[in-house]
Amino acid sequence: MAKALPKRSENYSEWYNEIVKRADLAENSAVRGCMVIKPYGYAIWEKMQRALDDMFKATGHVNAYFPLFVPKSFLEKEEEHAEGFAKECAVVTHYRLKADPNGGLMVDPNAKLEEELIVRPTSEAVIWNTYKNWVQSWRDLPLLINQWCNIVRWEMRTRLFLRTTEFLWQEGHTAHSTEQEAIEEAERMLGVYSTFAEEWIALPVIRGVKTPNERFAGAVETYCIEAMMQDGKALQAGTSHFLGQNFAKAFDVKFVNKENEQEFAWATSWGVTTRMIGALIMAHSDDQGLVLPPKLAPIQVVIIPIYKSPEDLAAISEKVQPVIDGLKAAGISVKYDDNDNQRSGWKFAEYELKGVPVRLGLGMRDLEAGTVEVARRDNLTKESMPLDGIVDHVKQLLDEIQVNIYQRAVKFREDNTYPVDSWEEFLAQIEKGGFLLAHWDGTAETEEKIKDETKATIRCIPLDAPVEEGKCVFSGQPSSRRVIFARAY
Amino acid sequence: MAKALPKRSENYSEWYNEIVKRADLAENSAVRGCMVIKPYGYAIWEKMQRALDDMFKATGHVNAYFPLFVPKSFLEKEEEHAEGFAKECAVVTHYRLKADPNGGLMVDPNAKLEEELIVRPTSEAVIWNTYKNWVQSWRDLPLLINQWCNIVRWEMRTRLFLRTTEFLWQEGHTAHSTEQEAIEEAERMLGVYSTFAEEWIALPVIRGVKTPNERFAGAVETYCIEAMMQDGKALQAGTSHFLGQNFAKAFDVKFVNKENEQEFAWATSWGVTTRMIGALIMAHSDDQGLVLPPKLAPIQVVIIPIYKSPEDLAAISEKVQPVIDGLKAAGISVKYDDNDNQRSGWKFAEYELKGVPVRLGLGMRDLEAGTVEVARRDNLTKESMPLDGIVDHVKQLLDEIQVNIYQRAVKFREDNTYPVDSWEEFLAQIEKGGFLLAHWDGTAETEEKIKDETKATIRCIPLDAPVEEGKCVFSGQPSSRRVIFARAY
Repeated sequence: MAKALPKRSENYSEWYNEIVKRADLAENSAVRGCMVIKPYGYAIWEKMQRALDDMFKATGHVNAYFPLFVPKSFLEKEEEHAEGFAKECAVVTHYRLKADPNGGLMVDPNAKLEEELIVRPTSEAVIWNTYKNWVQSWRDLPLLINQWCNIVRWEMRTRLFLRTTEFLWQEGHTAHSTEQEAIEEAERMLGVYSTFAEEWIALPVIRGVKTPNERFAGAVETYCIEAMMQDGKALQAGTSHFLGQNFAKAFDVKFVNKENEQEFAWATSWGVTTRMIGALIMAHSDDQGLVLPPKLAPIQVVIIPIYKSPEDLAAISEKVQPVIDGLKAAGISVKYDDNDNQRSGWKFAEYELKGVPVRLGLGMRDLEAGTVEVARRDNLTKESMPLDGIVDHVKQLLDEIQVNIYQRAVKFREDNTYPVDSWEEFLAQIEKGGFLLAHWDGTAETEEKIKDETKATIRCIPLDAPVEEGKCVFSGQPSSRRVIFARAY
Repeated sequence: MAKALPKRSENYSEWYNEIVKRADLAENSAVRGCMVIKPYGYAIWEKMQRALDDMFKATGHVNAYFPLFVPKSFLEKEEEHAEGFAKECAVVTHYRLKADPNGGLMVDPNAKLEEELIVRPTSEAVIWNTYKNWVQSWRDLPLLINQWCNIVRWEMRTRLFLRTTEFLWQEGHTAHSTEQEAIEEAERMLGVYSTFAEEWIALPVIRGVKTPNERFAGAVETYCIEAMMQDGKALQAGTSHFLGQNFAKAFDVKFVNKENEQEFAWATSWGVTTRMIGALIMAHSDDQGLVLPPKLAPIQVVIIPIYKSPEDLAAISEKVQPVIDGLKAAGISVKYDDNDNQRSGWKFAEYELKGVPVRLGLGMRDLEAGTVEVARRDNLTKESMPLDGIVDHVKQLLDEIQVNIYQRAVKFREDNTYPVDSWEEFLAQIEKGGFLLAHWDGTAETEEKIKDETKATIRCIPLDAPVEEGKCVFSGQPSSRRVIFARAY
């Protein structure tokens, strides 16, 4: 029997690491800070990609591919951007190895690049340098382009999925002829992200804008979706930036507008990453292992035969085949695990650990009675049901589970969100975790002092926060709305 | 009016470059040797990916993701492999930039890596180092894993799609418990590639094995598919390698076999790249522009209204709507181009250039007569047809075009393949181009001399070459089968 998982309540961090490992999602590679995304974890990413890509295309975007390398001089062009990313850049300085006289290979000193290349930490620079040649007239706009790729930001403290030196993402980069249109685009994509988070990951999110301190380097406004994990900490699950004309000016991207005047183009960029897999794990899983939202589960239904003899297995398999066919025809991914090397008890635990939403178990008694045992992963309940009509039932059940884990997460967030009106309350609550709704005076100074004292950051100024006169929880200065403070991943 | 394309017969190389550019497929980036794959070109790649990925999954493979970086010491472990790739490696030596006192950014000398990281030129090393921990028993085998990613091999002379410093590909890496099973896997994937080339790209290919000289660095046997371009040159469109136990030994990947003995695992790797887009262009396109196989065309049917007044356009649009709906319902990607900024003549030329397989044109006379003009891109014919039943006709036509361009390419290859039995014939024919079927004595020495004298290489030893006694075209030594010589991309 495998060792039990650590409990969330006892060691949340260790619980997370163990789930990632035991559910076969990912592992650390030999390359510091870089992960190997294992087939089961990657299958979740593929489902995320497919759903998001469909949503991007439905909103008029197309995919393209831009180079991995950013010349150093490009990165320098937008000053804030350069400053924001300089400290985490992997730098290519040479383009050849040669035989080392002492054995093995060495860098060939004769193959030094004239200009260093940065492995992309994000692609604004390389893409806006390209857009320069694509945009002449307002007729060339908007450009609505997305890219799926890998990104490198050198991290000292890494965590599988949540913070890794290399990660996978998509980055949308759009160019527009008016400020208004660009702002609408940034907000539209935030909407796509929140729809995806809520309907696919079953992850309730708060839409908001970041404070200037927390903005993307080079953005005029950063929109974000923030989610709560089961330890009460916040996780930023996606961002969408209105970049104003900053990159157009840095890369000289001008167009002739309808009034026949030269104007700089307006920009947005937006991205979500493999970090979403970390959010998914942390939001729904339990002390038995992973809990997957059915819409993103690589295996939605597992069927396990319970038998003693090969004859029993044959009889069960025959009965099960139409169920498998029916589920597949309904577009449900199903696995029939008739592997003879493992006992059914071991299999039950294994698929529980891997978060498969529905498990069907069939033994000889079921065969006689025309029943099947249906187990739900989300609430760990099981019941015996007639085998007749099981396909329809499972279909309905998957929808129900999807809704249930979403609602459970909503309730958890509500239960752990606290309006806080004094500094004493703030200090006491932040230690317990959760989202703190507090007034803030709007200054970077106060924001930083609060961070220094409590490790809490302003996660966002919610888009739907009602106007409410109040006083800053820290400085006592006037404030017109509450913002969300939390400790964060 | 845009300048006409260069003619294939006059300047094949320039013709290719202009098609890539004017059909909006790709362009050179500011980063030397790296390309920007533009949305229209990337849409072709997405269709290729989807089809191949389905085929990989149907043959039992799953996707995963491994790190971009290969520590130098890993690359060194398999000696031939190291030697093969050392000269084209992009090397990361530092992980941070800092403000340059003279302005801008500079590499931070304090952030030098202890061990250099190579941007992956292929992933055998990093993957086999990972497999070491995944394989203990024969029960853990086979591992059938594929990865879609970017690759960097520093190239001095680059060509869009055909040879670029960065390219996109997939790489399969499998581990097996027996030699026989690994060989079968390498052959199976060669079969998948040739099916894909022939049925999707409409590109006839010859399956064969490479000579030892042309093998992948670290392989025991390299299988390949070779295609003929319209200038008579060869293009290697995909490779599948049987790696023996070379990587298992280099990375110490052992398993306990059924006889309870420790054994090294057997390996394969196989890959196809964005180069296939270059092959597609060169195989089918003509002096009017790109010709796309319908199965890979981002737009399969374009519908162009021919009108003078807005009322005419409205009448045509109304008539066209059911056709659009019908085509979409049949799974056909259709574009209705009612853009008012361009004349219909310009549009005709544009979609011809972009290789859209079928064009439907509707004017006011068609509306009265209940007809539509149907134009085929492959043979540039057009005919007036009844609008009634047009969806079925188009569906059939797309299949017909797919077959036609394949057969045309087969015929072209047959017409340009020459059995050659003397050195004089060889020298004369190689200047004219095409595939030369010639006897070869099997030595690397002869192979290299022929290459030095004629720039022709042995493309492959065809798998289905009949046994035929003969004499080496160069040395006169005995040979038992003909191999294919050609100049190649």
